[in-house]
Amino acid sequence: MYAKLVCMDDNGSNQLDQLGKRSKQAAQEMAKAATLSKNEALSTAADAILALSDEILEANALDVERAGAAGAVRTSLDRLMLNENRIASMAGGLREVAKLPDPVGEIAKGWQRPNGLLVTKVRVPLGVIGIVYENRPNVTADAAGLCLKAGNAVMLRGSSAALGSNKVIARILRQALSETRLPQDALILVEDPTRESVKDFVQLSGVIDCLIPRGGAGLVNMVRAEATVPLIIDGDGNCHVYVDASADLDMALEIVDNAKTSRPSVCNAAETLLVHKDVATYFLPRLVSRIPQVELLGDAKTCAILPGAVLATEKDYATEFLDLKMTVAVVNGLDEAIEHITRYGTGHSEAIITNDLVSAERFCREVDAAAVLVNASTRFVDGGEFGLGAEIGISTQKLHARGPMGLEELTCLKYVVHGQGQVRT
Amino acid sequence: MYAKLVCMDDNGSNQLDQLGKRSKQAAQEMAKAATLSKNEALSTAADAILALSDEILEANALDVERAGAAGAVRTSLDRLMLNENRIASMAGGLREVAKLPDPVGEIAKGWQRPNGLLVTKVRVPLGVIGIVYENRPNVTADAAGLCLKAGNAVMLRGSSAALGSNKVIARILRQALSETRLPQDALILVEDPTRESVKDFVQLSGVIDCLIPRGGAGLVNMVRAEATVPLIIDGDGNCHVYVDASADLDMALEIVDNAKTSRPSVCNAAETLLVHKDVATYFLPRLVSRIPQVELLGDAKTCAILPGAVLATEKDYATEFLDLKMTVAVVNGLDEAIEHITRYGTGHSEAIITNDLVSAERFCREVDAAAVLVNASTRFVDGGEFGLGAEIGISTQKLHARGPMGLEELTCLKYVVHGQGQVRT
Repeated sequence: MYAKLVCMDDNGSNQLDQLGKRSKQAAQEMAKAATLSKNEALSTAADAILALSDEILEANALDVERAGAAGAVRTSLDRLMLNENRIASMAGGLREVAKLPDPVGEIAKGWQRPNGLLVTKVRVPLGVIGIVYENRPNVTADAAGLCLKAGNAVMLRGSSAALGSNKVIARILRQALSETRLPQDALILVEDPTRESVKDFVQLSGVIDCLIPRGGAGLVNMVRAEATVPLIIDGDGNCHVYVDASADLDMALEIVDNAKTSRPSVCNAAETLLVHKDVATYFLPRLVSRIPQVELLGDAKTCAILPGAVLATEKDYATEFLDLKMTVAVVNGLDEAIEHITRYGTGHSEAIITNDLVSAERFCREVDAAAVLVNASTRFVDGGEFGLGAEIGISTQKLHARGPMGLEELTCLKYVVHGQGQVRT
Repeated sequence: MYAKLVCMDDNGSNQLDQLGKRSKQAAQEMAKAATLSKNEALSTAADAILALSDEILEANALDVERAGAAGAVRTSLDRLMLNENRIASMAGGLREVAKLPDPVGEIAKGWQRPNGLLVTKVRVPLGVIGIVYENRPNVTADAAGLCLKAGNAVMLRGSSAALGSNKVIARILRQALSETRLPQDALILVEDPTRESVKDFVQLSGVIDCLIPRGGAGLVNMVRAEATVPLIIDGDGNCHVYVDASADLDMALEIVDNAKTSRPSVCNAAETLLVHKDVATYFLPRLVSRIPQVELLGDAKTCAILPGAVLATEKDYATEFLDLKMTVAVVNGLDEAIEHITRYGTGHSEAIITNDLVSAERFCREVDAAAVLVNASTRFVDGGEFGLGAEIGISTQKLHARGPMGLEELTCLKYVVHGQGQVRT
């Protein structure tokens, strides 16, 4: 029925729907698990990952070798590759998550109705979380840690290239679960290298309560088109910084530099600079001196000020470069800046640098994005930086979660109602 | 490109993507709209619906006549039909929504980071909400009222049978919007009778921020399979009442009667009674005397106690009868009751009648549903009864909204971050 699907634990059925049933069963157990057990499982797993790092590295070396022989590009191989540092950060990540407060059980709201009914909204796990991801094998531990801490079962569907590494990491985590008397099946790695099987996975209606694709636009679009289960999109970040006429221009230089160059390859890096016409002539040449390593692509006004800039196309403004490249546009004011962002933005993170209160307020209100920032770098839009502890991604959709997703976003609220025999008239 | 799609206002393009652009534009305006303007638009619409009720009834009579001639069944015609009372409740509904507090602008959370960044989560509209619905023309006003009050634009895609009625109601609402200087396009009725066009509608990625299908299982399943936009499922309610050994049995009789018979056709009505073996012999015959009009289908133990009961099949236990019919099972205790609900429930509303604290706590924790109730009727699971004011549906999924969806569920939280020049190190 389904394509070749082997669970890492060969005792079970090799059918995807069987794996789904086991995951649902485990989710019921996990929902009842004590915080201390969950924390212990994560710490145990962290210890084991360090103790068995040689085995992980060995499996990973084979994955890398195979991918290299198959002609994988350098960045792809880099994402696939593990080393002692990366393994240490997987273990460290699990320990950090163990330390975070457990979101499960919080009474988020509660009120009494005139008829005496006590209505409460209680935080509970989502159930089964499905993760579809690409090369990075550290996602296996990172994503699992967050999902398990929030009381969920997780079904992981990684790439074929990372299968060997993922199998070892998943086995270690399952072992840690069972050593702490939690169900091993709270973590299930779906092993099947075909593209077709992703489709079956994202259509596990009635099993997967929340699907999170982690990867590039190709993966995300495929999942969006094929999925029949509820999902959260962690989309592109085409982020803008708008330097207003009233901005502190030294601050603006610092922030644009940080937003563009501190880590160009991540989604909260800035891709476009919008600068008010009144300050462009002063600001842009200084920016070039500040970040000479960044290639600037600008509109006609920018190119008039910066002879070294290349004329930007429509497509450039819509591109998430993830590189030391930045588009620039000189705008007549706030309205034009907001229009530009509305047109080209991806609803991720948008910043304004200004000293004008009305501009700041209008920017915050009118720019439609997961995060808007005043006088701060877009690079802060991150679970750790916001104080959520850790994140499983940054949602660019509006349903359920918007912006960095921490433990709370891996839960939902259930109505628990206490009566004394009330009936509805 | 698209099948025949005519906007009610013929000035615009007749292409669905053009309608989508207009809706997005209107959503930006609506997000900024003052509470007073939104309230005034709803009150103006309520007045106009009453003033123009003859016109609505005339258009509706033609819809009903056409549907009758095409062989529509009685219940379907009943849903389609409007009368003075139903029109009065449309108008009354809009007035009630106008009175509710505006969720937009609430600062749901806020905290300061060690580096001085002030991180807040601010409640904002979702943007464009798409509603796909079936025969009831009153949904046009009811759904639009809630979406608009929460600051959204709404795209409505009703059934071909109700098109005449929907056009008149939509025109009245659009007129009210423009009279209060809000954008008419905040309400767009998509007019196209083909099944194919629903598919185009639910694939308006980049336009629809939240899709809510309102209708039967056929519609919901089609939408789930075809949609590429984020959606909230308002699914079936196969609700259970479990009468525990320790229950106050007079209370249990009241509640089971109310849950089953007060309005059998709605999703929060009970469909199955689970009764503890220790009290079944006493309880079941009394239930039959209490609700003789209800046809009972039971397991072997039930049939042994109630010779008049029919033996229930697997399928019966999985069925939402929406009728004066109820399945019954005698269980050995709480574990078996929870197992039964886990197997057959649809995650809607589940009740326990008990005086045992541990049973109540376990039931609330272990039953996975949008709402669990102790010693109260499942019929309370409703936006109005919970005090949300009004509801656009009851979500049976876990993402974003679970249970009755009021105004708050038609919004989302956006991060607004204030700094003083911070950059990330």
